[in-house]
Amino acid sequence: MHSDDEPSIAQVELLMIDLVREGSGEAGRAAAFHLAAGGSRVRARLALDAARALALRDRDAIAIAATCELLHNASLVHDDLQDRDVVRRGQDAVWRRYGAAAAICVGDLLLSAAYAALARTGPAAAALIVRMHQRVAAVISGQCHDIALQGRAIASLETYEQVARAKSGPLLILPTELALALAGHEDAIPNAVEAGALFAVGYQIADDLEDVQRDALTEELNIVAVLAAAGETQPQARARDLAVVRFGQAHAAATVLPCGCGALLAAHALRQCLSLSPVLETA
Amino acid sequence: MHSDDEPSIAQVELLMIDLVREGSGEAGRAAAFHLAAGGSRVRARLALDAARALALRDRDAIAIAATCELLHNASLVHDDLQDRDVVRRGQDAVWRRYGAAAAICVGDLLLSAAYAALARTGPAAAALIVRMHQRVAAVISGQCHDIALQGRAIASLETYEQVARAKSGPLLILPTELALALAGHEDAIPNAVEAGALFAVGYQIADDLEDVQRDALTEELNIVAVLAAAGETQPQARARDLAVVRFGQAHAAATVLPCGCGALLAAHALRQCLSLSPVLETA
Repeated sequence: MHSDDEPSIAQVELLMIDLVREGSGEAGRAAAFHLAAGGSRVRARLALDAARALALRDRDAIAIAATCELLHNASLVHDDLQDRDVVRRGQDAVWRRYGAAAAICVGDLLLSAAYAALARTGPAAAALIVRMHQRVAAVISGQCHDIALQGRAIASLETYEQVARAKSGPLLILPTELALALAGHEDAIPNAVEAGALFAVGYQIADDLEDVQRDALTEELNIVAVLAAAGETQPQARARDLAVVRFGQAHAAATVLPCGCGALLAAHALRQCLSLSPVLETA
Repeated sequence: MHSDDEPSIAQVELLMIDLVREGSGEAGRAAAFHLAAGGSRVRARLALDAARALALRDRDAIAIAATCELLHNASLVHDDLQDRDVVRRGQDAVWRRYGAAAAICVGDLLLSAAYAALARTGPAAAALIVRMHQRVAAVISGQCHDIALQGRAIASLETYEQVARAKSGPLLILPTELALALAGHEDAIPNAVEAGALFAVGYQIADDLEDVQRDALTEELNIVAVLAAAGETQPQARARDLAVVRFGQAHAAATVLPCGCGALLAAHALRQCLSLSPVLETA
């Protein structure tokens, strides 16, 4: 199943569509509608990059990339419904277009397809599934914690970071983790976990900085409100500093992963650091 | 991993709880709340019975039984939310107790745990996952079709049977299918598929006969309305006849499965036939 060319995002897209269209009628069409809106496919690219660095088989690289991206998209479809967000990537969110009941089905289909993609790795699949379920359980835990905190008293900074790690960390960890597990580098996985989790915290803070006004209206958890409640007089500047620190730590942890398999994650972290540091950007 | 005693439902329950409680906080507790309400565990028992008949390892038997039961419970949690059913097994439905957003998370967790249980079969897991995803996609297709038909013009009998097969068939097929696949009896799987699908149609009709009044109010798809619209003057009696025919066919298909691995499914089908035939019952 090896090919001369490197496995590409296009092959990942084909596998994803194959798996969601398999005998699943209206839900399959709605899932394809969601996937067709694109997105940056960050998690698929992280998996492909790590797989290339670790010299994995093309078939395995495409499988884990599709797994991570399908899982991420399952979470988007269900999150949009839970948060009643109406637009996703410039088009209707699935629940808005097809209804809430159908959106539940579509997220389920994408989640199931993520596991089906992992089956392509053959006998190694069993060990990868165990890892994946741990990450899925952690994401769900973070999502539930986040929901429980909405409209409540402001959380502590510690709770905020916990939720951010749990909500976004696992799906940023998984691409590198699955590649390392397939390559037999289990010893490096704790470092990959740390890199992904730190990146997730940085990313959540950066996202919150863009949504300060909106989140204040909807009473969603936002770092600026958390820091203001903790007595910070310049909560936005302090939040930006904290994001830069976390992205810096993520960069360091990703850089030391074996065979350069964290290079793309490290590059993303560095770019985020730069965009959050106006002084550096204009220097 | 062999034990002297036969694998039991208690071992399946333990595995299910382990998999949903793994680091998943509030969602894990809500999933455990749902599972603690019990239920007849028909699908787990079908898997254990088929595994015993086919002399599978205890570890594999428990794994596939937990997989089928977790998958069924994932569908119940999401179905109850979609249909706004407030009671499940004599207690609050998950969405009613924990909210709609949490119920989405709980169903996702149970679905992920179903795949994690399958990982316990080791290198065989990859092939089983592919089968499982096909069944999950079919269930989702049936559920979406059913939702689309609610409140619409009455469906034809053919459409009704298609929806019943798709909605309930796959999860009744899966216990026997996974056991047969693990035992290397792929040739017998088409027969197991037919037995499970016919049982599902019979079961849906029997269920509809109990819910005639309620379904008429909520405009849900019901066999009695379908037959009445098709011109049947005694739609209830005709529905009962049809259920008996389908259960009889399911019994026949399950009985010829290898090593008696369809014995429990056949027994269930026979019991349903008897309970639907008052003449036989009192004879």
